[in-house]
Amino acid sequence: MRPAIDLAPATPLLDAIDAPEAVKALPEADLPRLAAEIRARMVAIVSRTGGHLAPSLGVVELALALCRVFDFPQDKVVWDVGHQAYAWKMLTGRNARMETLRRFGGIRGFPFPDESPYDASVGGHAGVALATALGFAVARDARGGREHVIAVVGDASLTNGISLEALNAVRHATDRLILVINDNGMSISRNVGALARLFARQLTGLRYNRIRAAAEAAGHRLRLNRTAAFWRGLKTTVKTLLLRNRSAIFEDLGLRYIGPIDGHDLPALCDALRTAAEAAGPIALHIATVKGKGYAPAERNPSKWHGVGPWAADARKNAAAAPPAPSWSAACGLALARRAQGNPAIHAITAAMRSGTGLTPFFRDFPTRAHDVGICEGYAVAFAAGLAAAGLRPVVALYSTFAQRAVDNVMHDVCLPNLPVVLCLDRAGVVGPDGPTHHGLYDLAMLRALPNLTILAPATRPGLEAALDHAFACPGPTVIRYPRGAAPEGPAPRLPGATPQAPIILALGPTVFWAEPVARALGLALEPVERVKPLPDILRALTPGRPVITLEDAAAEGGFGSAVAEVWPGPLLVLGWPDRFVPQGSEGELRAACGLDAHGLRMRIAAFLGGLPGASHA
Amino acid sequence: MRPAIDLAPATPLLDAIDAPEAVKALPEADLPRLAAEIRARMVAIVSRTGGHLAPSLGVVELALALCRVFDFPQDKVVWDVGHQAYAWKMLTGRNARMETLRRFGGIRGFPFPDESPYDASVGGHAGVALATALGFAVARDARGGREHVIAVVGDASLTNGISLEALNAVRHATDRLILVINDNGMSISRNVGALARLFARQLTGLRYNRIRAAAEAAGHRLRLNRTAAFWRGLKTTVKTLLLRNRSAIFEDLGLRYIGPIDGHDLPALCDALRTAAEAAGPIALHIATVKGKGYAPAERNPSKWHGVGPWAADARKNAAAAPPAPSWSAACGLALARRAQGNPAIHAITAAMRSGTGLTPFFRDFPTRAHDVGICEGYAVAFAAGLAAAGLRPVVALYSTFAQRAVDNVMHDVCLPNLPVVLCLDRAGVVGPDGPTHHGLYDLAMLRALPNLTILAPATRPGLEAALDHAFACPGPTVIRYPRGAAPEGPAPRLPGATPQAPIILALGPTVFWAEPVARALGLALEPVERVKPLPDILRALTPGRPVITLEDAAAEGGFGSAVAEVWPGPLLVLGWPDRFVPQGSEGELRAACGLDAHGLRMRIAAFLGGLPGASHA
Repeated sequence: MRPAIDLAPATPLLDAIDAPEAVKALPEADLPRLAAEIRARMVAIVSRTGGHLAPSLGVVELALALCRVFDFPQDKVVWDVGHQAYAWKMLTGRNARMETLRRFGGIRGFPFPDESPYDASVGGHAGVALATALGFAVARDARGGREHVIAVVGDASLTNGISLEALNAVRHATDRLILVINDNGMSISRNVGALARLFARQLTGLRYNRIRAAAEAAGHRLRLNRTAAFWRGLKTTVKTLLLRNRSAIFEDLGLRYIGPIDGHDLPALCDALRTAAEAAGPIALHIATVKGKGYAPAERNPSKWHGVGPWAADARKNAAAAPPAPSWSAACGLALARRAQGNPAIHAITAAMRSGTGLTPFFRDFPTRAHDVGICEGYAVAFAAGLAAAGLRPVVALYSTFAQRAVDNVMHDVCLPNLPVVLCLDRAGVVGPDGPTHHGLYDLAMLRALPNLTILAPATRPGLEAALDHAFACPGPTVIRYPRGAAPEGPAPRLPGATPQAPIILALGPTVFWAEPVARALGLALEPVERVKPLPDILRALTPGRPVITLEDAAAEGGFGSAVAEVWPGPLLVLGWPDRFVPQGSEGELRAACGLDAHGLRMRIAAFLGGLPGASHA
Repeated sequence: MRPAIDLAPATPLLDAIDAPEAVKALPEADLPRLAAEIRARMVAIVSRTGGHLAPSLGVVELALALCRVFDFPQDKVVWDVGHQAYAWKMLTGRNARMETLRRFGGIRGFPFPDESPYDASVGGHAGVALATALGFAVARDARGGREHVIAVVGDASLTNGISLEALNAVRHATDRLILVINDNGMSISRNVGALARLFARQLTGLRYNRIRAAAEAAGHRLRLNRTAAFWRGLKTTVKTLLLRNRSAIFEDLGLRYIGPIDGHDLPALCDALRTAAEAAGPIALHIATVKGKGYAPAERNPSKWHGVGPWAADARKNAAAAPPAPSWSAACGLALARRAQGNPAIHAITAAMRSGTGLTPFFRDFPTRAHDVGICEGYAVAFAAGLAAAGLRPVVALYSTFAQRAVDNVMHDVCLPNLPVVLCLDRAGVVGPDGPTHHGLYDLAMLRALPNLTILAPATRPGLEAALDHAFACPGPTVIRYPRGAAPEGPAPRLPGATPQAPIILALGPTVFWAEPVARALGLALEPVERVKPLPDILRALTPGRPVITLEDAAAEGGFGSAVAEVWPGPLLVLGWPDRFVPQGSEGELRAACGLDAHGLRMRIAAFLGGLPGASHA
């Protein structure tokens, strides 16, 4: 039941905003209309570009309140998991370019300092905003500055280990910092753990008890109207609530605590932020927001609308050529659920990516053997090590880029005791519009030096099934990497080459489908490779001196080609992603930009072969 | 003022202990004598082997109490930072071999499941015990088991992010888990942050207020005699204290709380553990111990005695040939302090390794610009990113193996925005007796694929100075790696080779000193290399086809040699540590075992050269 979308909403107020100062200059009465314009434009844009709609809809008033109260870019706001920052981008000089959101060469889906002086840090991986903000605060204190530093952290990000390390460090680090806890009651899937329960308890406590008492006080308005209009009109002072709602946990950690505040009540938000700005000592401002606020389908099902593909009619038409095959994630999740049916030792672990990693069926069918640990990748792997040491067969499904959080645990807790943990690395390779924070290009380099580890990279869905079978039969740890997108049914093409001594392409995983037309055109041999460690047997079978080309959907440095280079004595060309951060864009655009499309591959391979002694190969 | 050590103390009780069951069978009255025997033997052994003396002295009674109360190995105890586990090792069948502690082929300095069924997990890196214990507990619950799972976590480890992630997950994961918080009031340097203050406050509160009230109750004994005999004789019930000393923070996280308990009062400890074992729901048992307990010098200066080298007269004699040069750590710390004098933008960050990374002078001279963030490597790097984004020049000094915790932050928070953070990777290479958890062999593989990063590996102390100058002049991030041990004054040897086309050894960092005798013996050219990324210029200057041998104090897979292999088209031999976990031992023993001593290098290089077409090189 998606309402018709106005794809070109009139946004006269927003059109006039070129910087946060312009928000400050608006009459207060215009702000609700500006918020509505921002939401209308955000929905219109994301309906065509796809993106993180529900999170960004939830913090429109927060972005406005920040602009009203603080002076940017002198003051600094650090957005944790910056996919909530679309309104922020619209209000800081980027509104006119928002149609290019998440497109090649366009506005990034996350804050990036190289895009705007208003973006204080890169905000792609959850949990680092408070740590980075403390860096800004300490640097300010060191030079005697007075600017404000604000970290906006979602309740789910707050339970990440680096957030908690930073929370523990706040008081030691600085006397002046504002931590805004954006509490929408759900992480990307749903919140997990004791801290989430603590927040829920406080909201409940506020709603049913304290607001009544607090309402007796006069002064600034503060409303909580998350689920009903009932609370509208209640008025109280922020200070009264400050006194009444101290949270034991934040107090223990040395932060003063204000909250919860209705995160969609602009005047209350502005009041609370002003109070926080004047506070002595670091302060936590706990706001309650509705994920998806203002767009009914997203409010009804914020998980589904957390990150969405384009759904506008014209965008869908353009995307009609999308492959109908199931995604790698879905294929992996189904394969795991099937194996779990016959093997009670199999447990599945995800770090707040239940749906993203395809584990929804597993969670449905085996709820007691499925563990969503929140945004805690290090914990996920150490926990799996315990399960494996106790005789179970745990599978940890992580996005490749987020697994970077856990490489020490893979080394110390899994590989060193040689435990049979299976790591499914989803989104390994370029991921498209989410860009450089989310591309999974470094997993092979970071993991392949670890002893005892088997690393597999299936080329097809049946290859993934075989990889899982291999992993569950293996006495030690296994990594299985696969990219975003559709899993080919196969078979993986294998070409003999124009002559028995023809140069050969060793294509890792699904890149065998990238290589096929090039190999055909150049008369090369092509061999699909589905294992990085130990190296595939074919290397031993090749005639010495035969030119070898490796291809992979990973950084060329340190990856599969690098492993081949260590042992292959003959001519070798290593093809993979270059030694620079790969931007956002479609897979096709990115491959073309980096010489990995059919044209680029053909040119580079031809140049390599042409440069060989006695070049008659191609 | 070191007291004379009895190097062969009589330990009749301990000699009869072959397993925890034997501890259980002893009369209670014998236990203090057994504890004294353990301490005497521990001091005698460590005086010759070196090791983590103060932490292990502090938990002798805890190890005894665990043996008395629980049934091992059915029950599981997971020791966090297992360097405290010497008494545990003595009581679990390894006493007779303890003289081999930390020696090549001997008893490991940390728990390892491959050493004993009583060691539930690998315990080298801090912060993972609770996560691993939760894995054991969840696996037990899944099969309906009843065994106990105990995690012993130091107060410093508890503030690590993975500990906190696990703490947040406890109640969601299991109803039965015992978390023993071993609170000795200091991490390896000293505790940091709000949690530490919270613990201190509770101890204080107990000592001066609650014990008096609690003492009114009768029943089990519980004493707190940390600093004085004053409290001796106070008797109370564990249950009374359980009711009185609930900690808000643990209650918020869903754990019941008992404590603090005097961790050297065996009967009280046993009572508390029995109470914990019978508790409904997960429980935190907070014990107060004295680091270094029972050895006066260690009690007086527990930081100095945290990890010590051999100090017994005979051991010192054997170590007389040790190099007199200052360590790399000290050289780096002094170089940083000197540069900080002239550059107020330089800040230094350590993760509980102030002394270990040589930063003591920096902390003394620039206390406001020196940050010990506790065992929080991820936070350390994200915090540094904030400092750098705000215009400062932060240096993060970490041990290579612990920096594995922060690779995602190096990628996402530092390299992606291209911030000028300097990472000093100490202990990069084999570290000797601490063994595989502590060798720093994977940093190059994990980091060298990251764009924007410069990676330096100086060969000498002056080379380290030059590397630091380069790093501070660099607009982007720099990693500087250097090993444990003495920093040579140089110069790094450079040899022309027997002929202009002689095979050439490219030796990374201080391995140039390993290579020199080999190159001389074989008539090879030798070139010191001090940069891994970008690759050194010499590669472009070499005649194509000239045989190249790379050598590095890092895993051969994915490291410097691998980087050379990616680009060097000629014959290449990559020499580094093999694809298996390198055990503990002296550098000499380990190099000999892995073919990296002079003999091994010579044999391997000769075999390589002999296998080349037209082999007349060597």
